[in-house]
Amino acid sequence: MPNEKFPQKKSLHEKDGITQPNHVNQNSIKNIQNFRKKKIDVDALIQRLIQGDIPSLSKAITLIESTNIAHKEQANLIVQACLPYANNSVRIGITGVPGVGKSTFIEAFGTYLTSIGKKVAVLAVDPSSSISKGSILGDKTRMEDLVKNKNAFIRPSASGESLGGVSRKTRESIILCEAAGFDIILIETVGVGQSETAVHSMTDFFLLLNLAGAGDELQGIKRGIMEMADAVIINKADGDNLKHAQNAKLDMNRALHLFPLKDSKWQPKVLLVSAFYNKGIEEVWQLLEAYFKLVKANNFFEENRNNQNAYWLKETINEQLLSNFYQNTEVNRYLQSAERAVQNNEKSPFTAANELLALYKEHHTFNKNE
Amino acid sequence: MPNEKFPQKKSLHEKDGITQPNHVNQNSIKNIQNFRKKKIDVDALIQRLIQGDIPSLSKAITLIESTNIAHKEQANLIVQACLPYANNSVRIGITGVPGVGKSTFIEAFGTYLTSIGKKVAVLAVDPSSSISKGSILGDKTRMEDLVKNKNAFIRPSASGESLGGVSRKTRESIILCEAAGFDIILIETVGVGQSETAVHSMTDFFLLLNLAGAGDELQGIKRGIMEMADAVIINKADGDNLKHAQNAKLDMNRALHLFPLKDSKWQPKVLLVSAFYNKGIEEVWQLLEAYFKLVKANNFFEENRNNQNAYWLKETINEQLLSNFYQNTEVNRYLQSAERAVQNNEKSPFTAANELLALYKEHHTFNKNE
Repeated sequence: MPNEKFPQKKSLHEKDGITQPNHVNQNSIKNIQNFRKKKIDVDALIQRLIQGDIPSLSKAITLIESTNIAHKEQANLIVQACLPYANNSVRIGITGVPGVGKSTFIEAFGTYLTSIGKKVAVLAVDPSSSISKGSILGDKTRMEDLVKNKNAFIRPSASGESLGGVSRKTRESIILCEAAGFDIILIETVGVGQSETAVHSMTDFFLLLNLAGAGDELQGIKRGIMEMADAVIINKADGDNLKHAQNAKLDMNRALHLFPLKDSKWQPKVLLVSAFYNKGIEEVWQLLEAYFKLVKANNFFEENRNNQNAYWLKETINEQLLSNFYQNTEVNRYLQSAERAVQNNEKSPFTAANELLALYKEHHTFNKNE
Repeated sequence: MPNEKFPQKKSLHEKDGITQPNHVNQNSIKNIQNFRKKKIDVDALIQRLIQGDIPSLSKAITLIESTNIAHKEQANLIVQACLPYANNSVRIGITGVPGVGKSTFIEAFGTYLTSIGKKVAVLAVDPSSSISKGSILGDKTRMEDLVKNKNAFIRPSASGESLGGVSRKTRESIILCEAAGFDIILIETVGVGQSETAVHSMTDFFLLLNLAGAGDELQGIKRGIMEMADAVIINKADGDNLKHAQNAKLDMNRALHLFPLKDSKWQPKVLLVSAFYNKGIEEVWQLLEAYFKLVKANNFFEENRNNQNAYWLKETINEQLLSNFYQNTEVNRYLQSAERAVQNNEKSPFTAANELLALYKEHHTFNKNE
């Protein structure tokens, strides 16, 4: 079909002074130029990132967090290129309910770590931030000193996504931070949901922050989190609170000893800290050093990372398979009534499941020749 | 194509005394007759089962456990027919490591329950039995008195299947036992694996059997099981062991208090029992009565059962979706090398996952017009 907007002039009718319209669409030229420019930018970005350039690291993480398909492709290239430079760090998960003083602790702990020559990156996993729009995790304004420190990198939580999405972004950000030369990665989360399991599955050491309370220190902490902890830190162990904190330490130690021995063979410890008064911070690092000495000697460190990689492979696959099913229009149309029938004992869960699976099979959009 | 074995004789050549071969395949006739017979049997079976006939209950559970497709269809009919008669029972999960005395406890507890007019069914979830071929769960020979009791029904664990398969069979068996008038269902499992979560998800009350040991009572118990327990029973609390058991009770009570409050609002209790000497058995039932009074009043009982039904609906769907993927020939061919690449940090888990998903999409056998 001839181009109606820019009709091709025949040579017979050609007049001087009229510019011949270009056969190639100007937008395509621009796109190709942009693509080439971006391709070059990505290579340069990777080079700068690996040399430890912080703005490049920030930019790369922004690409990871983007929902734009072109950005995603670039992000994949960057992650792939960074992989050989990653893994030379320790990854520490930090959790605790709001108010326990996570930001103050990270400020104090991070500052101490940089003072002994470490490079510290602070990331966060907080899928709730997309809902509350008010997440304080990784909030730079609450870490005034650390944010100015040239050996620290603080990145607020990726938002607007499922836990799976946030986890992927954080895991990939870890790789970039490591490639950029950060040797201690702190990953913060809030102790109230599933995100702890995600953080536990991407870190080498899991630290639970707590306060001394009125005998029921664990009431606010979600089931299972206590069992994941490699260390419990009782924060705000200062002034009038010190005595309470010491009692809480005894209780907590007893509770930790009742749990089965961890695969790492590490016996979790309880430490008293006053992040505000900068007390007990060095002891936390000493504890971590003892842990890493143990798990690097008994090979748990490496095995655990291998298992974590395998875990995220399967986790990503499973999440995708299930979300394909549950986001299917036909499945969605009947899921609620199936749930009702099952809850009212009109149908066995197994019968209802088979019916929904048959429906999915019928209305599935997978295409063999796609 | 003409039948070579029984060639159709033409009328011209027909001789007297030769029987005309039947056009209808004799096997088909037999199958249809069998099907009609079985169909009638199923209806009669259901009627007898609902009237409390034990051989019919046994036969129906055998159909549930069968891998034969015709049996499965019959089993589905029976379960569906039993649903309106089910749910009038309490379902109690019982776990504990081997050697803790589960069979002895169930023998004593079951016998006590029948003595106060209850009808008791004992089922088991033990996916390992298919591997070890030596499961003692639900072993009738270890419950000599109970097996002779006309108000008790003991069914050994279904075997030869995945946890998902065993769970489904046990859940459907619960429905049949309830329809047959059993008002207390004891579901036994061994405290070493994932089967506890399955049993916890199909029972109203979760009972952990334990022994008094040398301070590390929980070392043998898998993580998370302690948190699921609504009661911990310290068995063999007799003779020289009594003092140890009393100390263990104190320790255990303290540990249980450190866990967050359960959704049921029930505070788990610790009891001393000597199943062998038949001591403390009545107290277990009193505890259960207190529990059921609480959770029926605060509606947790019903909510929990509704949630469990919804859980099994999703669990069945999810298991099926994932097993379709992981049993796919093409996926299987590449999964191991993908895992290796991920473990060696040659590929990010997310890249490898997307590659496998694309492969699955390509070689998927779902068919829109099937």
